[in-house]
Amino acid sequence: MASKQVYGAGIWHFATYVDRYATDGYGEPRTILDAIDLAGKVRDLSVVDLIYPYFGGEYTNEQIDEALERNKLRVVGITPEIYTRVFAKGSFTNPDPGIRKLAHDLITEAADVVRHFGADYVKLWPGQDGWDYPFQVDHGALWKASMDGVGQLASENPDLKFVVEYKPREPRVHMSYHSCARTLLGMEKIGLPNVGILLDYGHALYGGESPADSAQLAIDYGRLFGMDVNDNYRGWDDDLVAGSLNPIELFEFFYTLRKNKWEGVWQLDQFPFREDSVAAADHAIDFLKAVDRGLDKLDCEALQKAQDQHDAIGALALAQRALFSSY
Amino acid sequence: MASKQVYGAGIWHFATYVDRYATDGYGEPRTILDAIDLAGKVRDLSVVDLIYPYFGGEYTNEQIDEALERNKLRVVGITPEIYTRVFAKGSFTNPDPGIRKLAHDLITEAADVVRHFGADYVKLWPGQDGWDYPFQVDHGALWKASMDGVGQLASENPDLKFVVEYKPREPRVHMSYHSCARTLLGMEKIGLPNVGILLDYGHALYGGESPADSAQLAIDYGRLFGMDVNDNYRGWDDDLVAGSLNPIELFEFFYTLRKNKWEGVWQLDQFPFREDSVAAADHAIDFLKAVDRGLDKLDCEALQKAQDQHDAIGALALAQRALFSSY
Amino acid sequence: MASKQVYGAGIWHFATYVDRYATDGYGEPRTILDAIDLAGKVRDLSVVDLIYPYFGGEYTNEQIDEALERNKLRVVGITPEIYTRVFAKGSFTNPDPGIRKLAHDLITEAADVVRHFGADYVKLWPGQDGWDYPFQVDHGALWKASMDGVGQLASENPDLKFVVEYKPREPRVHMSYHSCARTLLGMEKIGLPNVGILLDYGHALYGGESPADSAQLAIDYGRLFGMDVNDNYRGWDDDLVAGSLNPIELFEFFYTLRKNKWEGVWQLDQFPFREDSVAAADHAIDFLKAVDRGLDKLDCEALQKAQDQHDAIGALALAQRALFSSY
Amino acid sequence: MASKQVYGAGIWHFATYVDRYATDGYGEPRTILDAIDLAGKVRDLSVVDLIYPYFGGEYTNEQIDEALERNKLRVVGITPEIYTRVFAKGSFTNPDPGIRKLAHDLITEAADVVRHFGADYVKLWPGQDGWDYPFQVDHGALWKASMDGVGQLASENPDLKFVVEYKPREPRVHMSYHSCARTLLGMEKIGLPNVGILLDYGHALYGGESPADSAQLAIDYGRLFGMDVNDNYRGWDDDLVAGSLNPIELFEFFYTLRKNKWEGVWQLDQFPFREDSVAAADHAIDFLKAVDRGLDKLDCEALQKAQDQHDAIGALALAQRALFSSY
Repeated sequence: MASKQVYGAGIWHFATYVDRYATDGYGEPRTILDAIDLAGKVRDLSVVDLIYPYFGGEYTNEQIDEALERNKLRVVGITPEIYTRVFAKGSFTNPDPGIRKLAHDLITEAADVVRHFGADYVKLWPGQDGWDYPFQVDHGALWKASMDGVGQLASENPDLKFVVEYKPREPRVHMSYHSCARTLLGMEKIGLPNVGILLDYGHALYGGESPADSAQLAIDYGRLFGMDVNDNYRGWDDDLVAGSLNPIELFEFFYTLRKNKWEGVWQLDQFPFREDSVAAADHAIDFLKAVDRGLDKLDCEALQKAQDQHDAIGALALAQRALFSSY
Repeated sequence: MASKQVYGAGIWHFATYVDRYATDGYGEPRTILDAIDLAGKVRDLSVVDLIYPYFGGEYTNEQIDEALERNKLRVVGITPEIYTRVFAKGSFTNPDPGIRKLAHDLITEAADVVRHFGADYVKLWPGQDGWDYPFQVDHGALWKASMDGVGQLASENPDLKFVVEYKPREPRVHMSYHSCARTLLGMEKIGLPNVGILLDYGHALYGGESPADSAQLAIDYGRLFGMDVNDNYRGWDDDLVAGSLNPIELFEFFYTLRKNKWEGVWQLDQFPFREDSVAAADHAIDFLKAVDRGLDKLDCEALQKAQDQHDAIGALALAQRALFSSY
Repeated sequence: MASKQVYGAGIWHFATYVDRYATDGYGEPRTILDAIDLAGKVRDLSVVDLIYPYFGGEYTNEQIDEALERNKLRVVGITPEIYTRVFAKGSFTNPDPGIRKLAHDLITEAADVVRHFGADYVKLWPGQDGWDYPFQVDHGALWKASMDGVGQLASENPDLKFVVEYKPREPRVHMSYHSCARTLLGMEKIGLPNVGILLDYGHALYGGESPADSAQLAIDYGRLFGMDVNDNYRGWDDDLVAGSLNPIELFEFFYTLRKNKWEGVWQLDQFPFREDSVAAADHAIDFLKAVDRGLDKLDCEALQKAQDQHDAIGALALAQRALFSSY
Repeated sequence: MASKQVYGAGIWHFATYVDRYATDGYGEPRTILDAIDLAGKVRDLSVVDLIYPYFGGEYTNEQIDEALERNKLRVVGITPEIYTRVFAKGSFTNPDPGIRKLAHDLITEAADVVRHFGADYVKLWPGQDGWDYPFQVDHGALWKASMDGVGQLASENPDLKFVVEYKPREPRVHMSYHSCARTLLGMEKIGLPNVGILLDYGHALYGGESPADSAQLAIDYGRLFGMDVNDNYRGWDDDLVAGSLNPIELFEFFYTLRKNKWEGVWQLDQFPFREDSVAAADHAIDFLKAVDRGLDKLDCEALQKAQDQHDAIGALALAQRALFSSY
């Protein structure tokens, strides 16, 4: 029986990038339509997360519809760009109320785009919200603004889900939605059912979390609304190809999802700066499919017994055998 | 007018240490009485946190009383040793219910010791509670056990405060009470007023937190019950002398306490492996006294204005001037 | 007597920046002429390091001369841009020999620009030379290419100095000129007297080095040709304002330079993404001037005695007192 | 045809441990004879590295011989304990010349033990040589002492090999033999053919090196005399079971050894604090045997072609397929 697992990717996986050194970019600029067409070339990809506003030109939702359709892709979420120049000092936490309003309005627009596509959520990634230096901000006020901004949107749009993708840092040296626990703490304070977490495996990893533990925690609060994967060297958000460095923790992460009967898209959040983006996605999804088969093969009962004794070697042996024999 | 600030230290500051290499220890073993006498030699120290059971011999509370009295020291908290051999696989989260019971009983004894000394709290530092390997534990069950163990004690002893000192890792590779937010999340679930945090500046620092931000967060939940300071290189709990590496964030930490009118002991949690422990404490307290004077001098109104604009350079200039001119 | 210390900055300190999120930049683009005019506004700045080709337009060396003159600035070094799009897979180590030739030619042009300005050195910062993934490169071949590229230029231009600014990572996940010791090892193999190190304090810090130790090592090999400073949280090249986080190690770094009678420009390599760049430079130089006064005040004989005993507390007390009382 | 690969382990793998918290140890103390008998129970272990002096009692070399013989084990190296209490402030770099002499004498004794067993080398692990605080030491003098101590021993014992096992930190906050490149730089200065590196995979990993790159570098200098493996989370020397976290970089490390026809023992340096030590060794060696089979299967020619193009995805696909299908 073929697996029913659905695979997705952030559309930026198929864009080109700039950074502070290669200011002329790691390739020719692409439009969102180019990116959708590239996404369509990936063997097993059926879902995308779209940045809003659309990049590379002025496009209508209908033009996007058409591109998606010809590539057999569906939209899982919309990511409003609340981290560009105007938001350099923050979106929800910007010291300027005019900019905070701008963020609110852009996200409200994005909510309509979510409705247009029948997508699952508005994705909030407030990468400029936080601080760089000691003494720079009033921490209490900053955190309150972080929660207020999200809470207001969620209460104004009760028909939609809002997911926050927390991250330790970058571009801000310290982001306010910093960790899984911090984000859940804020969401419990906000107190609305339509706010949840998009858990990025790599963010958890380089934040010193165990991604599996973070997934379990978010699930236990009923707030794991989405996820994506990639890989890194635990010191930075390298956004490398999933499975290339830490395959065993990745397997544990998906094990936790399945154990909790979490059903959702397995998404990629990779930045192939110097690689062919279709090849990078194909290679990652090949690994995820091995993970999926490995989960079928895993002796979950024996594993639970080993875990009940905190038996590391016994548990690892089961997991490694199941994963590696499925590749 | 002389400052009223009270300074304290964990009694282990005045012990000698072993580690996995210098198994014969970094000095002759000392008894807790030796350590109290050394603490008494520090110029401005008036409070200690005691490990229980007492080390180096069988001592009665009365013998400890006497040693404290001759050194003009008071007890702020009792730290039951729930991280020794028998607890190697955890105290609250040990897979063996018999060991969990042992931990509970030892802490219950420690609660009586707190009552004897009229101390402020029982300090829980579950350093062996957590995991080392992927797949080793059932994360949901482990976290539940972490909360249950603390909750049971707090509900059985409503007359006492229980503080949890969270820490990212060591000796366990990943501790369950890992971060400030995670600990607060657990405490909100426990739902009792007598559980709170003991915030170790160094743990926050090497966990990637801003200690000032963590202090504000714990205060906002009414759960900052204690604190101690030291310093490190952000990668490990080096427990170096306070102010030796990161003086500006230390100053921000104490600024946050004063701003919130938090009044408590400023404690040291240092491990002077190779240094004279009295000199190390004196040197640190000299720095803390400069911090105290610097806070008197700091233009808090101007600082707040700078922070309202997220003006890093303006805020830093005020802070650096106040601190450094007070040393 | 006024200090004779000369202060400098990389001209990029006064540019605006892009990153992979704020692709529209952290401010309006500036030309190199704009940047030179801003540099001229910094109170005590007299020297700059220029990127080549000049950014923001087509400018002749003479136009640059004029801008420098009206701002009373001198050129200390030229930094050819060997890390832009065409060099995304490396300059000296690019798999394509045509690109390696391009890098060589651009640096050769930059050498002539050094001659034009009578600058001190060509600065090589091969930020794209390295790798991202395990198995991606033949490590022996890559390292040989790193040395060959630098060696060829140094032997072709014996009248000039070539400095390599090593860095652990970014933009490449792992740079080939990774650490001070690695770079010196390569330079000893190259075996030419006109190759040396430009030691960036922040690169040493987040690479887990002690910047003072690295400076001493490079000096002992006769290869410390330049330096710049900034600050960071030890996990990434944050390029924050010098002295804002780790003032004591900064002081030790400059102590080491003075002790060895190293005379050169004290340069800034800061990236004030969200700050006023003139204010950020002024603030940093104020700190450096305090460092300079602190060195005058430091009891070097007593310090050497403490160091001869590895007496940390004694040495720190001397250093902290001298530095902080000079701010 | 069965593989000829020889597997070994540090004898401490089979000891019990203490740390600064579990001062009563993670198990009953064992003698070196107990440890040898446990080593004998590991399925494919044939070589051990012995700590000197022998722990747990006064034993003659002959008693050790007997224990080795009954367990069919051979000695690969002797590790003199130059990191215990008396050496807390350093062995080669101790400020006290009497202690430096003590270190020299102990290592000289260990050299005779190497001769007795016909072992391959004296292993030097100067874990207490370095510093903890800024300003604590004179860096030039400290490094010179590090080299002098090793150089003197190597020149006095030209019939033996001396290997230095570098490590970033622990127990010292910063070790003087810190990285692969630093150690090679020192050895080139020492200038003797009988000094080389024992490369610990985990030390390279958490020091931010690529272990494969470090191996290649040491080989290119003719100084890779030994190696051992384990695993960690890249922030500390966790000494976990090899292959449990970073299997792909481990595979690349062994690929580099085979490519260079490096023939030596594949050793374990694990600290199974809470695990059964025989099971932990068996599990690790099972993984190493999969690595060995994976190398047989790896298409080295295709890999070299991918590497010549820096083709990460192509190279990874080859490596992952060969390794995982061999487990």
